[in-house]
Amino acid sequence: MAFGWIDEQAELRRRAGLVRTLRPRPADSPLLDLASNDYLGLTRHPEVVEGAAAAARTWGGGATGSRLVTGTTELHTTLERELAEFCGFEAALVLSSGYAANLAAVTALAPHGSLIVSDAGNHASLIDGCRLARGTTQVIGHADPEGARKALGTHDGPAVVVSDTVFSVDGDAAPLAGYARACREHGAGLLVDDAHGLGVLGEGGRGAPHAAGLAGADDVVTTLTLSKSLGSQGGAVLGPARVIDHLVNAARTFIFDTGLAPAAAGSALAALRLLRREPERAARARAVAAELHARLTAAGLEAVPPDAAVVSVRAPSPEQAVRWAADCRSAGLAVGCFRPPSVPDGISRLRLTARGDLSEAQIEQAVRVIDATRP
Amino acid sequence: MAFGWIDEQAELRRRAGLVRTLRPRPADSPLLDLASNDYLGLTRHPEVVEGAAAAARTWGGGATGSRLVTGTTELHTTLERELAEFCGFEAALVLSSGYAANLAAVTALAPHGSLIVSDAGNHASLIDGCRLARGTTQVIGHADPEGARKALGTHDGPAVVVSDTVFSVDGDAAPLAGYARACREHGAGLLVDDAHGLGVLGEGGRGAPHAAGLAGADDVVTTLTLSKSLGSQGGAVLGPARVIDHLVNAARTFIFDTGLAPAAAGSALAALRLLRREPERAARARAVAAELHARLTAAGLEAVPPDAAVVSVRAPSPEQAVRWAADCRSAGLAVGCFRPPSVPDGISRLRLTARGDLSEAQIEQAVRVIDATRP
Repeated sequence: MAFGWIDEQAELRRRAGLVRTLRPRPADSPLLDLASNDYLGLTRHPEVVEGAAAAARTWGGGATGSRLVTGTTELHTTLERELAEFCGFEAALVLSSGYAANLAAVTALAPHGSLIVSDAGNHASLIDGCRLARGTTQVIGHADPEGARKALGTHDGPAVVVSDTVFSVDGDAAPLAGYARACREHGAGLLVDDAHGLGVLGEGGRGAPHAAGLAGADDVVTTLTLSKSLGSQGGAVLGPARVIDHLVNAARTFIFDTGLAPAAAGSALAALRLLRREPERAARARAVAAELHARLTAAGLEAVPPDAAVVSVRAPSPEQAVRWAADCRSAGLAVGCFRPPSVPDGISRLRLTARGDLSEAQIEQAVRVIDATRP
Repeated sequence: MAFGWIDEQAELRRRAGLVRTLRPRPADSPLLDLASNDYLGLTRHPEVVEGAAAAARTWGGGATGSRLVTGTTELHTTLERELAEFCGFEAALVLSSGYAANLAAVTALAPHGSLIVSDAGNHASLIDGCRLARGTTQVIGHADPEGARKALGTHDGPAVVVSDTVFSVDGDAAPLAGYARACREHGAGLLVDDAHGLGVLGEGGRGAPHAAGLAGADDVVTTLTLSKSLGSQGGAVLGPARVIDHLVNAARTFIFDTGLAPAAAGSALAALRLLRREPERAARARAVAAELHARLTAAGLEAVPPDAAVVSVRAPSPEQAVRWAADCRSAGLAVGCFRPPSVPDGISRLRLTARGDLSEAQIEQAVRVIDATRP
């Protein structure tokens, strides 16, 4: 029977205790949210909501076509200009998701005959970009500039080093300066995904490349998402104008996809302007992360020192991680729960988001619940 | 220098006359639009706009996380239930774009050791799905059930035939019944992309699988987009519940992507309900296409008989296609212009959208302009 093999896989997953199910949330959830990626707590900010509503009223529910046909509105170009300016890059290109942005950037920057050097901790979307690209991929260790240097030394021709700036699972930062040095020694490009850096790292949340002095360099390209700190949906690629022009002409997930919905562009733009006006929001997210980490470790829990706004807490096993997260939920706290196969190292953990808008009382509540429910 | 090869490629494109540039449109464009994929003219319908605005007010600007963490709202599951019901399938899964939906479906349904039989005219997103999948891809001719039958006959183990239902460039329909028969002879699954069929084909716009009597079959999966007839953004996979459960557990572009923005889900749901209430909108889009085709061919132009709402008009060369489209634009008419490398067969053409809300006067104006500016 067609798709019969699916039932066998489902049975294997069931036996391994790895079945994933969707849990719809209501609009007025009573849970304290430390699970989302809404790092600055802007998703429900009135200006962000009104940005979405106003854009829908002005432009309609959708972009109506691919960006090269009818899908580029003046709203898209305004968002692109302000994103580039804020992050310190020459130009930007907005796509329908961060996933699409990563597929676009990796495939367009790794032509036939080129080398892609990829950090072992990279996000699924970068990995899929490597798989789709015509170039050859060499995976190096996690956070391994020396590995990048060695890999680049084996190759003649175009090359690009690809890395997250902040890794999603543990919230640790990439050695951007080391990667950039390795690239420059070998004339290679550096492509980084700042999904978890934008709005949190750098002066006023300008992101990890800006903080590392790499923004605007002619050999650096960054991708980012509009769905985390900016509380919306979509992704972007930022870099030299000639690289962005190249993507317009060569990136399939840009060319053959409908443009980002006006409402998403509008809410992202509103969030960006809010962040520019209130730059302290970025520092506050970092401070909440540091405080969460300090309190959790003081309580004897094992947590990774946060480089951005993600705090990762080790769990003894996948089963205990799932039960821990469920117990937190029963006690009114939503936390992320990462376990194989979503984690490359096989270590299960709770993943906490240090939202910048958490109050002291909420931080205290979160730590109390996590501690009280520990396995 | 890093990315130096980009300048060489740009120069080649310039010399070949194939440079693509973005043209931002204002909110109050005076152009008559026959270029977008807004097949039913719903993008700016007040109910669709209000669907977006209300969802943003209720849920915020973004979904805040991946669907398996915090990104599934009750709005997403309502949309999924109503989409599945409308199109006649057991279950549905909404993703951030049609591109992501196709990547999800192809990769999840073509495991290691399986065969993917792919129609030569398939959309870029299906092709990228084939490239990403672990299975082996065999490309058959365009609209070639006999080719599918032969390819399936060479393979033992899981297999899936993959095809658009309506091909984007020429607007021709796939031989769905023939593909389904070939699949059933060999116990293979059938996966079709109904991006250009939903809202246009089938009773009240229920889509091509419904029209072909294939909706709800246990060996048929369909993908669709929320960004064309439904005037919004996003994509979906529809099929048997066990296939959808499998995607929740296995499809990387579902698992590792932020959920669709509430505003996009809200406008798509509003458009779907509108279409259910006013099923004559689908027939009207088909009638406009037939009329456009009849008038264009009566004027001596070469156009492909439309199977849905796309009317494709042949142009003598890429350069003349570009000039023709530009002349239309100068005369107040926006049309699509497809040329290599976006067209697989090397034939350049104007692509017209037979929007269901076009008036008789607008159809007449469009034909007059296209005829007057012909090369």
